[in-house]
Amino acid sequence: MSTVETAETAIYDRRESEVRSYCRNFPVSFARAEGATLTDADGNSYTDFLAGCSSLNYGHNDPDMKAALIAHIERDGLAHALDLHTEEKAAFLTAFEHHILRPRGMEHRVMMTGPTGTNAVEAALKLARKVTGRRNVIAFSNGFHGMTLGALALTGNAGKRGGAGVPLPDVTHMPFENSMGDLDTLDYLDTMLSNPSSGIDAPAAFIVELVQGEGGLNAASCEWVQGLARLAEKHGALFIVDDIQAGIGRTGSFFSFDHMGIEPDMVTLAKSLSGFGLPFACVLVRPEHDIWKPAEHNGTFRGNTHAFVTARVALEKFWADDDLRNEVARKSQVLEERLSQIAGRIDGAALKGRGMMRGIDVGDGEFAARICADCFRRGLIIETSGAQDEVVKVLAPLTIPMEQFRKGLDILDAAVEACAPFPIAAE
Amino acid sequence: MSTVETAETAIYDRRESEVRSYCRNFPVSFARAEGATLTDADGNSYTDFLAGCSSLNYGHNDPDMKAALIAHIERDGLAHALDLHTEEKAAFLTAFEHHILRPRGMEHRVMMTGPTGTNAVEAALKLARKVTGRRNVIAFSNGFHGMTLGALALTGNAGKRGGAGVPLPDVTHMPFENSMGDLDTLDYLDTMLSNPSSGIDAPAAFIVELVQGEGGLNAASCEWVQGLARLAEKHGALFIVDDIQAGIGRTGSFFSFDHMGIEPDMVTLAKSLSGFGLPFACVLVRPEHDIWKPAEHNGTFRGNTHAFVTARVALEKFWADDDLRNEVARKSQVLEERLSQIAGRIDGAALKGRGMMRGIDVGDGEFAARICADCFRRGLIIETSGAQDEVVKVLAPLTIPMEQFRKGLDILDAAVEACAPFPIAAE
Amino acid sequence: MSTVETAETAIYDRRESEVRSYCRNFPVSFARAEGATLTDADGNSYTDFLAGCSSLNYGHNDPDMKAALIAHIERDGLAHALDLHTEEKAAFLTAFEHHILRPRGMEHRVMMTGPTGTNAVEAALKLARKVTGRRNVIAFSNGFHGMTLGALALTGNAGKRGGAGVPLPDVTHMPFENSMGDLDTLDYLDTMLSNPSSGIDAPAAFIVELVQGEGGLNAASCEWVQGLARLAEKHGALFIVDDIQAGIGRTGSFFSFDHMGIEPDMVTLAKSLSGFGLPFACVLVRPEHDIWKPAEHNGTFRGNTHAFVTARVALEKFWADDDLRNEVARKSQVLEERLSQIAGRIDGAALKGRGMMRGIDVGDGEFAARICADCFRRGLIIETSGAQDEVVKVLAPLTIPMEQFRKGLDILDAAVEACAPFPIAAE
Amino acid sequence: MSTVETAETAIYDRRESEVRSYCRNFPVSFARAEGATLTDADGNSYTDFLAGCSSLNYGHNDPDMKAALIAHIERDGLAHALDLHTEEKAAFLTAFEHHILRPRGMEHRVMMTGPTGTNAVEAALKLARKVTGRRNVIAFSNGFHGMTLGALALTGNAGKRGGAGVPLPDVTHMPFENSMGDLDTLDYLDTMLSNPSSGIDAPAAFIVELVQGEGGLNAASCEWVQGLARLAEKHGALFIVDDIQAGIGRTGSFFSFDHMGIEPDMVTLAKSLSGFGLPFACVLVRPEHDIWKPAEHNGTFRGNTHAFVTARVALEKFWADDDLRNEVARKSQVLEERLSQIAGRIDGAALKGRGMMRGIDVGDGEFAARICADCFRRGLIIETSGAQDEVVKVLAPLTIPMEQFRKGLDILDAAVEACAPFPIAAE
Repeated sequence: MSTVETAETAIYDRRESEVRSYCRNFPVSFARAEGATLTDADGNSYTDFLAGCSSLNYGHNDPDMKAALIAHIERDGLAHALDLHTEEKAAFLTAFEHHILRPRGMEHRVMMTGPTGTNAVEAALKLARKVTGRRNVIAFSNGFHGMTLGALALTGNAGKRGGAGVPLPDVTHMPFENSMGDLDTLDYLDTMLSNPSSGIDAPAAFIVELVQGEGGLNAASCEWVQGLARLAEKHGALFIVDDIQAGIGRTGSFFSFDHMGIEPDMVTLAKSLSGFGLPFACVLVRPEHDIWKPAEHNGTFRGNTHAFVTARVALEKFWADDDLRNEVARKSQVLEERLSQIAGRIDGAALKGRGMMRGIDVGDGEFAARICADCFRRGLIIETSGAQDEVVKVLAPLTIPMEQFRKGLDILDAAVEACAPFPIAAE
Repeated sequence: MSTVETAETAIYDRRESEVRSYCRNFPVSFARAEGATLTDADGNSYTDFLAGCSSLNYGHNDPDMKAALIAHIERDGLAHALDLHTEEKAAFLTAFEHHILRPRGMEHRVMMTGPTGTNAVEAALKLARKVTGRRNVIAFSNGFHGMTLGALALTGNAGKRGGAGVPLPDVTHMPFENSMGDLDTLDYLDTMLSNPSSGIDAPAAFIVELVQGEGGLNAASCEWVQGLARLAEKHGALFIVDDIQAGIGRTGSFFSFDHMGIEPDMVTLAKSLSGFGLPFACVLVRPEHDIWKPAEHNGTFRGNTHAFVTARVALEKFWADDDLRNEVARKSQVLEERLSQIAGRIDGAALKGRGMMRGIDVGDGEFAARICADCFRRGLIIETSGAQDEVVKVLAPLTIPMEQFRKGLDILDAAVEACAPFPIAAE
Repeated sequence: MSTVETAETAIYDRRESEVRSYCRNFPVSFARAEGATLTDADGNSYTDFLAGCSSLNYGHNDPDMKAALIAHIERDGLAHALDLHTEEKAAFLTAFEHHILRPRGMEHRVMMTGPTGTNAVEAALKLARKVTGRRNVIAFSNGFHGMTLGALALTGNAGKRGGAGVPLPDVTHMPFENSMGDLDTLDYLDTMLSNPSSGIDAPAAFIVELVQGEGGLNAASCEWVQGLARLAEKHGALFIVDDIQAGIGRTGSFFSFDHMGIEPDMVTLAKSLSGFGLPFACVLVRPEHDIWKPAEHNGTFRGNTHAFVTARVALEKFWADDDLRNEVARKSQVLEERLSQIAGRIDGAALKGRGMMRGIDVGDGEFAARICADCFRRGLIIETSGAQDEVVKVLAPLTIPMEQFRKGLDILDAAVEACAPFPIAAE
Repeated sequence: MSTVETAETAIYDRRESEVRSYCRNFPVSFARAEGATLTDADGNSYTDFLAGCSSLNYGHNDPDMKAALIAHIERDGLAHALDLHTEEKAAFLTAFEHHILRPRGMEHRVMMTGPTGTNAVEAALKLARKVTGRRNVIAFSNGFHGMTLGALALTGNAGKRGGAGVPLPDVTHMPFENSMGDLDTLDYLDTMLSNPSSGIDAPAAFIVELVQGEGGLNAASCEWVQGLARLAEKHGALFIVDDIQAGIGRTGSFFSFDHMGIEPDMVTLAKSLSGFGLPFACVLVRPEHDIWKPAEHNGTFRGNTHAFVTARVALEKFWADDDLRNEVARKSQVLEERLSQIAGRIDGAALKGRGMMRGIDVGDGEFAARICADCFRRGLIIETSGAQDEVVKVLAPLTIPMEQFRKGLDILDAAVEACAPFPIAAE
């Protein structure tokens, strides 16, 4: 492995904003990517346990999506179509209905928003406020929902919030499950909302990630999610699941709330929605809430036609049968076992997450950063999350070959051992 | 021309949100697009005077961008790379520096934001507030800057603002040039900002479109823009040009502020930045203001690699010499002449805009809508803008062949004549 | 007892706003008042267990204050003096220092604000934000701090909040002690403030009533108050005690926090501060926080000279020795015993409050209202408080003769028995 | 004249907040006051051209009010009555109806608020927002409406605004008449409100002072006020006149808008309302807007009974006939003449204001401060106003004897001559 040469990096120093971040931890120039493997300009290969922060659940450059996209471009299919009708949009919607919505009995409609998660979240907020005529929204500690002002107001992280430079009103932050020791967080929320003198204004919506991606891979239990959905209904609030990071198979099935017996009023999707890493986002809306006036919320790049093409292939290839689900279940078990082992050897460490969205809370961010840096030297790309960046987070492509997956976990294991600031407990 | 068949449109009724808009005015299914021509599923062709709301300034599927993009995909170039270093990003930045920034003596850095205009605007606002420690931002009547809460607060349109469902604070709206009869709008702004008892809090930034795309193609004069830039400096505010719609050649040169002798503190770009209609947005930031902490503002799809590929080709193909500029100048002249003629025959109508961003204010939105509907029946796709949708707006691809351009204008001419509610003045 | 004649009340119907409230429950015209006795125009007498909502802790028209005030007016002492120096102000400050501040070792300075509690609260908020450079303020469920926008944002009651017609930002509402069952509310607050991803912005201040007057006479324990004060310090927030209703002897000593071993950064006082029911309010500020610029917060009626006169007499008469304290202790015991007895006979009822700020939570507001109405028919003026107006509240003058006090409690007892919707438990 | 001795002032240094202001400019201790004369502890007399910032329009300790107040106190009339019925309240309302409302055909109701101007303004804002269901309020440059957050948001002064420490949303500031050179400020306001893309949200109310007391004695013309009232109606906004400083006879008749042919939806009154300098404030509300729920806005000291007594006497003594009006007209003429003369001798100075609310804009605050300081040395109490404190402001009691008034103006004249930094123009 080599670092990028001067000539190549000079352009970034000279012309790219200081806001860039991941490239600081992985200072090579990437040339190609296939499946779970990234290759740099010098030909070095890396296993990808970051997967575009869960935007590449099916890996890089899936051959079927790739072929379909090339074919689309070659025959001069539209690249940009605003919200005009195209065959590609119709095919995507049809596949989404057929493979995702109908099997679940979901009557939801698809609202194409600007192709980023934060835009989808902003649209969902607007609609919830319009539907209910209320302003306040309940969000949860350690939640992350985006960086534009409406979504940022929902976000817990003080550093990100501080970036706003303005107050972030119209949101009440409540504790996520298990964030307060033994406190019954649902009871807390219910009591505050039931007390007309609590000072908490009646909410338009609850918005929650079932596994908090940026917040440290905190996974809500089925009981908590069900209870939360009931509370939302009790208090006249819409229940919005932000499935941008945890959805599209990441936790084992398409939605993170599958098999929980709930049906959210809205669901936000982005990241792996296109299947190929292309910008694409949407909000699923129960039809009775779909009271938008035409163009009341819009955006130039809503409905990315290239993304329709790859997303349709992804739906047909991976969600027409149970193969991926079964594969993810197997890998999830491997992941849980290996991470449990590793965590067990670090004093105070804890396993976090659910499905293929797992990590180890190693207790402090500096230690976690050293582990990731060591992994990178060994050919594994992996990152942290959490309020203090204290969780080493495994977000491998769901489709990663089992052998490569195990090798990646071996690297992580070795890196933890190499970086541990204290003698590691014997296995 | 046929309308879309039932089977095809049923999926939209069933599964797409009511928020969709353009497809209501152009109810066909589009199959292919090349240059300035769209073709529907039945083989009917349309000339495109909408151009993705100025996202397709180089037309649809430019063959050189297309070839480069296919080659990139075929060789498994990265589709999604967060903000990692890639050859494609380096090449884009290098081309942008070489063809755009350096010739203008601009030291600006490029901040990749979420790939929509509104995300770029939100990032610019955050940075301006961080740099100045101030909160208030000056925006202008009839301005449009996006639909997420931060950008929406800048937007003038009451309907779009109302969609927020919450207050939109931290912005002061001031009158755009010529929006107040004879009022010297710069003097007004200066007086209000100079009076410590005006109630207008000291601004972090001014943000302005030099030609207001959604607001009715109001074009600011060079003098006004220069005066505004001076006022911003005088009052300690950053000067932000929102060039999302008017930039990338639309008004005749790359930036809408070229040749005005000003250098904005920040410039927001999106829409035609990728050249191919792919989602891509950025903020140009003077280096002294680039005080971001890493990841202080981020986004999953920042740095769309496919867009880097096509954007680089666009820069090299169209901005290495003066050919496009000259071509746009010629077409702008044709456009001005034809629209002036047409406007001259409608009582009270007025020519609006600048360069290839032109339109006719026909006085009321209902009339404008009828003209556009008639154009569509004649094979021309064209839309309206303005506070009352009263401006018929020509946003043809800059690269449209002159012959096709003239034919499109002939259609517009005929539609105006057919739709006029009153006897049209003889030429 | 008679009701007011038509001629007299017609003027209210014709010319007083519908916002009036107490007069609806006590529809007579009051002519005179002395000590704890009100007399109406027809000569009927009423014992006053409302005491101007604790503004008349020394009863009506205390003869010494009355004499001093008449003497002041007779010798043309100033009535209105802005914040100019007057002998009366100096005498008040000197007495306040001598009898109140110095014995407690309090170095606080006195800030005269507009003569209402809400103005004092607004001033305290401004100063806390200025001192800390932070914006957020922690307030507590069921708290009440006033009706102007800054103070209203702190207030819990949904009806009162809704009156604003605008959002009430910049405040986080946290649960008051014992408002959440077994939840350790201090631990909750600490955890949320300690988590940098909780979404709770760092607070400028905590503001709390030690006994919540409007919120239902919830009395905080000494341990909770001490813990809260420590938490404020730990998190860099100023600790503000709103002693407007619970202060000036109401709970048994001058401040409600006396003998708790804490020293608030700021204390707001109003209601009984003048001693005579005259409008007067102030903020006590620790000198290191007294960083106001002259007139940075002002008000026309700050420093009501008549109130200085009566307040000075009140301090000298009641706080130079322990007589009042001892008297209040005795009455507090009587009150606790009698209310406990009464509460014990109502299923589910609970004793609330502390000192001479006591009440019975009878479970629902309709029952409480009937009790109060019945008391009035029997010659006792008494009112409710609480989120649902479910607490019958005894706020007798501290100086009420014991005999009259007992008789008032007898009336309350009889009214409860008469109004109980269910057979009352035998004593 | 002597300055206050050390012993006396030490208490202020030790125990009064740094926020105090007037006492810094007039560092003596005041002992008595009668009519327009203040007397200090050493027996020195001063003519009062400050009059409690227009709270003492009838001078200090008017003998009839004084007698009535003493009689009320002596017979144990209520001092504090919440909003209960009292003979004093009925008598005040009856007198207010008889002498003020009925002669003008005003059907308004009186809402007693907390006894400060800012509380009245906050109540008016709440009601306007409730009546219209809108949030935004139009206020004017150089306006001052109070220091609590809702009223402060209306206030123009940057220093006072900055004291909030939080944003002040939900208000749009527009230019007051003549504040923008030749700009037709009504046309400006109308154009901005009529443009649905101006970014100015539809307003609940306009609130305006007809003579801006703190803002520099800017007097609106009758035409402007009428136009403004029409604009408010046109745009569905309530028209609120803040007559706290300019009302109660200050401009020559009871209301500052008398004889203008307008009838405001609401009027806020405070300052001289009690007649005696006692805290008292109210809002006059047209009956169709009086849609308050009982206690929806309240306050402990609403309805100051002592103030009812003196206010009733003031109404009967001064507003039953035209004597005061005629007297004020005469003094206003004297004032205009003398101030014109004085202003004429200062380069660039201008006469400001209307009626007995007059001043000279001397161009800079430092000069104005020197003039006031010199006046004080000569036995005249006078202060400044304006954005830069550049206006020397004459707010003499309306009842000041003509002889004393002229002598006060002589002092001002002499002080201007003594302080002028340049040779003063010969008369």
